[in-house]
Parts: sequence; C-alpha cells; structure tokens
Amino acid sequence: MKDKTDLLFGFHSVYEALRAGKRTFSGILMSRKKTGDRMEKIEILAKERGIRVEPVDPAILDKMTEFSNHQGIAARTSFFPVKSAMDVVDRVGPETSPCFILVMENIEDPHNLGALIRTALSAGVDYLLIPKDRSAGPSSTVSRTSAGAMEHADIYMITNTAALLRALKEKGVWVFGLDADGDRSLFDADLKGPTALVIGGENKGVRPLVKKECDFLLSIPHKGRINSLNASVAGGIAMYEVLRQRNGIPK
Amino acid sequence: MKDKTDLLFGFHSVYEALRAGKRTFSGILMSRKKTGDRMEKIEILAKERGIRVEPVDPAILDKMTEFSNHQGIAARTSFFPVKSAMDVVDRVGPETSPCFILVMENIEDPHNLGALIRTALSAGVDYLLIPKDRSAGPSSTVSRTSAGAMEHADIYMITNTAALLRALKEKGVWVFGLDADGDRSLFDADLKGPTALVIGGENKGVRPLVKKECDFLLSIPHKGRINSLNASVAGGIAMYEVLRQRNGIPK
Repeated sequence: MKDKTDLLFGFHSVYEALRAGKRTFSGILMSRKKTGDRMEKIEILAKERGIRVEPVDPAILDKMTEFSNHQGIAARTSFFPVKSAMDVVDRVGPETSPCFILVMENIEDPHNLGALIRTALSAGVDYLLIPKDRSAGPSSTVSRTSAGAMEHADIYMITNTAALLRALKEKGVWVFGLDADGDRSLFDADLKGPTALVIGGENKGVRPLVKKECDFLLSIPHKGRINSLNASVAGGIAMYEVLRQRNGIPK
Repeated sequence: MKDKTDLLFGFHSVYEALRAGKRTFSGILMSRKKTGDRMEKIEILAKERGIRVEPVDPAILDKMTEFSNHQGIAARTSFFPVKSAMDVVDRVGPETSPCFILVMENIEDPHNLGALIRTALSAGVDYLLIPKDRSAGPSSTVSRTSAGAMEHADIYMITNTAALLRALKEKGVWVFGLDADGDRSLFDADLKGPTALVIGGENKGVRPLVKKECDFLLSIPHKGRINSLNASVAGGIAMYEVLRQRNGIPK
C-alpha cells in the first residue's frame, strides 16, 4: 500500500508549509535537543493551527529521514496539492494583465526544480506548470531544495505539453522556448506581452514535439569556451529578463 | 601524510581537464563495462597526451569514489593550479578594456560554487576570485558540479578580501556587492565600467567588513512573498546583467 502521507523535514520546508496552509498536518516531530528562535516559530504556528508537536530523540528523526539534514524537525502532512494546467488556459486571456507562465519541461533533478520554483516565486511568475510524466514532481525533496518556497506556489500539472501550448497560443499567449540553439537572443526578445516561458530538461533540453509549438526559440548568449548553463541558472536569467523588461519592480 | 594527488571522476570533469591541460595526469581508470563515444573521446585525448588508460572493474571505481556517480571514469591528477589574487590587481588598469571580476565570498556549498564558476565562464568573467578561508575551494567536487567548466578557469585565491577590494578600487575598479538589503536595484546600476561583483555566502551574505569596501550594494528586485534566491541563481542573474549591459554578445 502506498503511503498516504508526505514527510517534510528541515526548517524552511516545515515552517513555510505551516505559513502557507496548503497541507493538512497530522503531526510535527521536534528533536528534544533543538531549541532556539526557529523552533519557537514553528511551535507558535503549530499551536495556532492546533497541530501537535511531539518532542523526540534525534535518532528517530535520523532514521525517518534516512540520515538527511533534518535540522531537528519533521512533519507528516498531506501531499502537496496540485491543479490542472487546463485551469490556466481558462484563466488567461486578453482582458487580464499580461500573464507570465513558466513551463518546466522534463526537469529531472529535484535541486534544479526546487531552485526554479524558488526563483519563479521571486520573479513574479503567475503560473508554474510541470508535466505529469518524465519530470521531477512537487515532492518533499523539491520543497526542501526550494527553501520552502514551493509551499506557497500554485503548481499546475500538464498531461500533454504540446496540446497545452496550442491552447495557450489560441488565448493570445506567446510561447518562448529556451534553447541553446535558438536563433534569437533572450535579450532581443520582447517579453512584455502574455508570455509562456518553456525551460527544457538538463540533458536534452526542450523536446522536438514541444519545440515545434514555440513561437520563438531563445538562446542565452555566451562568451568564451563554455556554452552551457545549469538549468536553474538559465531559468533564473530568463525569468529575470521578463521581470526586467516589464519593469513592474517593487524593491 | 596528505595525499598529493586529486581524484577526478565523472565524464565532464575528466574530459574537460584533459582538454584544458592545466593538470598533470598520473593515470586514468576506465570501467571495463563502459564503451561509447564519450569513452572514446577520452581515450583519444589521453593517447595524444601520453596518459595511460587502465581498464578496471566498476567495483574499483565504486570504492574509490565512495559509490558516487562516477560514470565509469576516474583520473588521478595534480591538484587544480591556482594563482594569487594580487596578480589581478597588477593586471587591471585604465589602459585595458573594462574588466569583469567576480569575487565569490564565503560560498560554502560546492554545488553553488560549481554553478557560479560554470556561469562565470559563460558570461565572460575575466577573473574568478575565491577567499583562501571560509569558502569552498576548487576541489574535485566543484569541478564536477561545474560540469567540468572549472578546468578551463583561471582561479585566483584571496588572502584578505577587504584589502584586495581596496587595491582594486585604487586601480579604478568599481566594487558592487550583491546584497538582499542593497539600496539600489541591480538593473539600475551602470555595470559597463571596470567591475568587481561580490557575491556573498549562502547564509550570511557579504560580510560587514567586506560590505564596507563596496562602492554600491545592489539588490535583485522581487515580486511576491518570497524574497530569496539560491546563491548561484542570484549570481547568474547579476553576471548576465553585466553581459547584457556591455552588449558584446556573440551568439
């Protein structure tokens, strides 16, 4: 039988999940050996929400987390709730202010997915989309690698990326694929209109079937001998170019 | 006795180290079970450089690398050669084209350091500087997390960051610290002149003593509830803003 609960651990994941209120908590385990401001913050929030905090031996947390860096805190919660990407199609349209959609195509490394989600929330991405298959999902690991940012995100799951992009284009959204072989520089693209930014996987980039649906393929220019960026760094540069161009930047 | 050789493993690290030619190789170990284009590329380069490639059981590589993802390849080499940051002070000056110096202050996570080095080489950073203490160094792990990019980098070690920044300022270099509390947006700064960009550590950012030496403290603007970026993503956004402003971008 598949486990019906998710195991969150590490301060940021547990704390941000409590703040965001998207998950149901069945309990929090806190190391007896841990005290301090951080633990207190969690205790206060847990009390407000009527969640039991159980003091435990650190060895129990070590075992539960397979000796990961749990920072003395873990929680049993419901799985992270996701929505359907078709909801995004319903919501965008000419009457709304230009939307900013991020499609994370086949990101396999949870560290990259976590960093991308964290950046997306900082860069003002409206909709975060992930394919159901062939991609890391919104797991407890990704929550942790996003420094808890994932807990605040609305994440939409895609069944068929090509079909989704076609539907978005019909609603007036411009689809930009990030591609090392793209014929246009990211910095020469006009990203001020309704935008869907497609970021490909670490190894193979955007898949050919998905590439075909992109209005533009954008490359990040480079100097020197090295022509490759980490997927989360490339995504960060592209997302912040959208933010920079739109210029709606509160400091 | 401290080991006098470094252990590189993984395709990109070993391959780029061979291409870059900065290390002396005492030998390459290749899994008997591995064949294909990648292995052939390494064999060809090794042959050209007179380095012995020894076929071994994969179990030997597993043990040597403590069961890391070695991809069937490892090499015993000299340590990565570094230079002194004072050489950078000697080299920069009004007569050269505006330099781009990256100071990676107290980056503790080798994954972040690797990603920053990889991005720096792509963004056209001229000089990569790392403090001798309180920072991850140019280790075999960092080579791997940089996807081998580190092997092509010139890396300069800093003894005293504050003193170095003072010396750079005397040579006409503008020092910009990246700081979440910075009073100016990255996108409002003029980064076209001789520039030293200081990126702080994951936890505490740029240290106060170093902050004092910065001409400007720049923040990356954000929207929404999350006000934090991964150090390597923040560094990537800032480095590419320099590249974008200078516009000397071959595609």
